[in-house]
Amino acid sequence: MDGAALARVCAEAIWADDSASKQFGIQLISIEPGHAVLAMTVDERMVNGHNICHGGFIFLLADSAFAYASNTYNRRTVAQHCGITYLNPARIGDRLTARAVERQWVGRTGLFDITVNRADGLPVAEFRGHSRTIKGELIPGLKAD
Amino acid sequence: MDGAALARVCAEAIWADDSASKQFGIQLISIEPGHAVLAMTVDERMVNGHNICHGGFIFLLADSAFAYASNTYNRRTVAQHCGITYLNPARIGDRLTARAVERQWVGRTGLFDITVNRADGLPVAEFRGHSRTIKGELIPGLKAD
Amino acid sequence: MDGAALARVCAEAIWADDSASKQFGIQLISIEPGHAVLAMTVDERMVNGHNICHGGFIFLLADSAFAYASNTYNRRTVAQHCGITYLNPARIGDRLTARAVERQWVGRTGLFDITVNRADGLPVAEFRGHSRTIKGELIPGLKAD
Amino acid sequence: MDGAALARVCAEAIWADDSASKQFGIQLISIEPGHAVLAMTVDERMVNGHNICHGGFIFLLADSAFAYASNTYNRRTVAQHCGITYLNPARIGDRLTARAVERQWVGRTGLFDITVNRADGLPVAEFRGHSRTIKGELIPGLKAD
Repeated sequence: MDGAALARVCAEAIWADDSASKQFGIQLISIEPGHAVLAMTVDERMVNGHNICHGGFIFLLADSAFAYASNTYNRRTVAQHCGITYLNPARIGDRLTARAVERQWVGRTGLFDITVNRADGLPVAEFRGHSRTIKGELIPGLKAD
Repeated sequence: MDGAALARVCAEAIWADDSASKQFGIQLISIEPGHAVLAMTVDERMVNGHNICHGGFIFLLADSAFAYASNTYNRRTVAQHCGITYLNPARIGDRLTARAVERQWVGRTGLFDITVNRADGLPVAEFRGHSRTIKGELIPGLKAD
Repeated sequence: MDGAALARVCAEAIWADDSASKQFGIQLISIEPGHAVLAMTVDERMVNGHNICHGGFIFLLADSAFAYASNTYNRRTVAQHCGITYLNPARIGDRLTARAVERQWVGRTGLFDITVNRADGLPVAEFRGHSRTIKGELIPGLKAD
Repeated sequence: MDGAALARVCAEAIWADDSASKQFGIQLISIEPGHAVLAMTVDERMVNGHNICHGGFIFLLADSAFAYASNTYNRRTVAQHCGITYLNPARIGDRLTARAVERQWVGRTGLFDITVNRADGLPVAEFRGHSRTIKGELIPGLKAD
């Protein structure tokens, strides 16, 4: 199995278990080794009375993209530290896309950057996540060639 | 109106508008100037197949505590940058308490620390939030004595 | 040896090796388990043409306090991730005090908060450091009772 | 004056005033709008008894790259919040290069990523800096076309 196929199999294994992302309509747009793109449309559950999306849901989308991207090698990873900077508001109906990119992977520590954009291209948030590899595999025994 | 009363009135104004916190059963335990305590019980919507709470919901609870604590002076504030460190897992049924403390307030920048604990006292996460004061008041014209 | 004595012995071992802190006149004010207070006076090497202290030297002071506080148990630790927020400027001649407090220690991860103040009490910076315990001891075989 | 020329003029204005960078032998390698590359060789002032570079000097290099990159538009900016993650050690004699890239600029808030590498290509640290535009220009009246 090549790395790209392994990444997709890992994403499917996480997705099967990921009711949190599903309940908010999060979609997996693309998965590659160390990369993930997810999308979510802001709905009435995520906004306050002024129709502005709560930061917690923007975090949730970015955090999901981080989790998918950091688990593309069939090595289990967990989040250790995440930082998010809010740049522009998102409103009800906005389609948000989170692009996760692997920036560094040294030993058991991974560092991923996730950018959340609106459909009009404006950045909503920048997120930086630190992952740590723990014991275990998502699909026991499966390896890239 | 004294500062403690103003803090409670501000919290009521935010709460009226806060469907995000309500939908996850978040409760306001206490509000004081610069301080807030909120609680949430981890339920099946927040966990993966291993009954471990997703980090996004721990963030959401801490972020809500941050928002309530930073809006106790009837000056509107928004979150700019938040960081979260995960320390111990939370599981389905765990009652989580988030305690927000104002650490610094200089000019328009506030810095708040939020600790999330399980009922058994174990720390689940440390969160540090940076807020910025924007124009406007939560309740126009209301001031502490 | 009690914990307080062990903390002091550890600090002496680091200090003997710490030419970086010494060259900037950093002083150890107090050491206790998980805590350290260090001080430094801003001099002409640390300022720009407007006599404002460069952020790098404020970081250096806070980072040293973090290192001393996180190495008080005779377990070697290293810094993993540090964040600093600048709150007020420091100027030439300002005496800065950095107080490091252990906030959490879970497994091999420590989380320390360091506040840097001027002599007039104004906060200059808040620093949060994440440490990780590695193999080895500062003084082989030495333990608290 | 085009943007590239303005960026260089801004860097020269900061450099004239930057004794902190000069005393550690920091060199300006390149400057473009929103970008800066700086280099520094680790010497005996920056290391402990094991010849490992103190994190504070890696921060100082990255922070300088951040300052140069965020001041390329002749709008004065100051650092608000910086985070650094240490990835690999640097040793005495290592030539370190810090590459600063503008990630976002929204209103008065800038977000810059700085990667510090050794000459052998290994990453030493990832740094993320948040800047804020304040009043004033580096060179009064100068503008890009």
